[in-house]
Amino acid sequence: MRILLTNDDGIHADGLLALYQALRRRHAVTVCAPEAEQSAVGHAISLSRPLRVKDVRKNGRFYGYAVDGTPADCVKIAVRTILKQRPDLVVSGINHGPNLGSDVLYSGTVSAATEGVILGIPSLAFSLAAYGRLDFRVAAGIAAALVGRATRLHMPSGTLLNVNIPAVGRKKIRGIAVTTQGISCYAENFVRRTDPRGRVYYWLTGKARWRRKPEDSDITAIEDNYVSVTPLQFDLTDHAYRAQLRRAGLSVR
Amino acid sequence: MRILLTNDDGIHADGLLALYQALRRRHAVTVCAPEAEQSAVGHAISLSRPLRVKDVRKNGRFYGYAVDGTPADCVKIAVRTILKQRPDLVVSGINHGPNLGSDVLYSGTVSAATEGVILGIPSLAFSLAAYGRLDFRVAAGIAAALVGRATRLHMPSGTLLNVNIPAVGRKKIRGIAVTTQGISCYAENFVRRTDPRGRVYYWLTGKARWRRKPEDSDITAIEDNYVSVTPLQFDLTDHAYRAQLRRAGLSVR
Repeated sequence: MRILLTNDDGIHADGLLALYQALRRRHAVTVCAPEAEQSAVGHAISLSRPLRVKDVRKNGRFYGYAVDGTPADCVKIAVRTILKQRPDLVVSGINHGPNLGSDVLYSGTVSAATEGVILGIPSLAFSLAAYGRLDFRVAAGIAAALVGRATRLHMPSGTLLNVNIPAVGRKKIRGIAVTTQGISCYAENFVRRTDPRGRVYYWLTGKARWRRKPEDSDITAIEDNYVSVTPLQFDLTDHAYRAQLRRAGLSVR
Repeated sequence: MRILLTNDDGIHADGLLALYQALRRRHAVTVCAPEAEQSAVGHAISLSRPLRVKDVRKNGRFYGYAVDGTPADCVKIAVRTILKQRPDLVVSGINHGPNLGSDVLYSGTVSAATEGVILGIPSLAFSLAAYGRLDFRVAAGIAAALVGRATRLHMPSGTLLNVNIPAVGRKKIRGIAVTTQGISCYAENFVRRTDPRGRVYYWLTGKARWRRKPEDSDITAIEDNYVSVTPLQFDLTDHAYRAQLRRAGLSVR
């Protein structure tokens, strides 16, 4: 397959390299990723400024294209301009840290895959569900195996797979769970400080978190050491409430 | 009601002022909006840098708080830090231009309301569906009337109302249509140019657009001069495809 590989941790991230090495054994992989880290950018695209593209080399060889934009920018410019042929698959990751529950709304990793499906290309997002110094090799093997099965999964147009991999040894992983998106909620706050020039600034800090996590959710699956595969789609319509509003007579049409 | 009012066009936008003037007749309105325009930022939040908050005055009076961040940042910092009491409602807009179909994924206006519902506060996003120089007064009247009805609409927790208002005279508006989110797709491209220092840059350009627009969609409603009210929710799980994947044996759980 022709695979477009991107991420939100930036083109020099270890998780991207591990996935690149695992995928290129069987596939034609093009890397196009942000020049700098782009975490929590949501589904941002650059409209009001130009983008620049640089060739990046690793160990004396061409590695990929670095874009001074967001993950969604990378997918757009790769598909529309850089790649000579349309990719069969957009793959994003492996992200350093989980993308579970409502956090997918903020996730640059997921937004790259979202842009893929907006452009009509089947897409997968991969995250390793832990912080700190990580070894991405086990996760990369699991991700590459899922990518190999992707064409047989008959992904509907408009749907991506959001995959989170537990950060444990291969033997502790209990297999794949096809999950629902849980709901995360941070016990967050802003720290208020004064800068060296006497001006006040605020910095977001997320402490403990409370989560609504049904048995079948992505959050629960990761806690129980399953690889969580959540199919995500982007018709946000609340159809049940829409029917209720129409019954209540809000709609004249 | 206590209303937190924000937008993505920035605190000096005409659409924000028109809505502020229409809402403050009946409600206690606090403005907290981005210092600069933040279009197409998606649901971005600032994690890696601090935020600054400035008081903004208009005609010698306090008008609101300007934040050097995204619309989602504004809602988060207002609710967590600036406001003494939790707002009853988050209102975003009036945006200069439509937020229809898949464009809601990129929309800063909608993302402010999304942050509202993530924080557990009922939220509405308003957009005037046209470009160019606009008169926001008719739209502001319609928006204020909908805000007045909001408590009686029994919005489910986690659901916002995305409201688009046609840019026509009041008499041409045919009433409210409760709609579904359509699917937009740009015939977009990147213009490739060389800057004054001889370096190549790319700039995104959206030309004509093709859209899948069912009869009941937001896009169709605006074309037919209805006020489009789309309830949006943020469980992105593709439940139908999830069931299919489980039947196909992908899940071991």
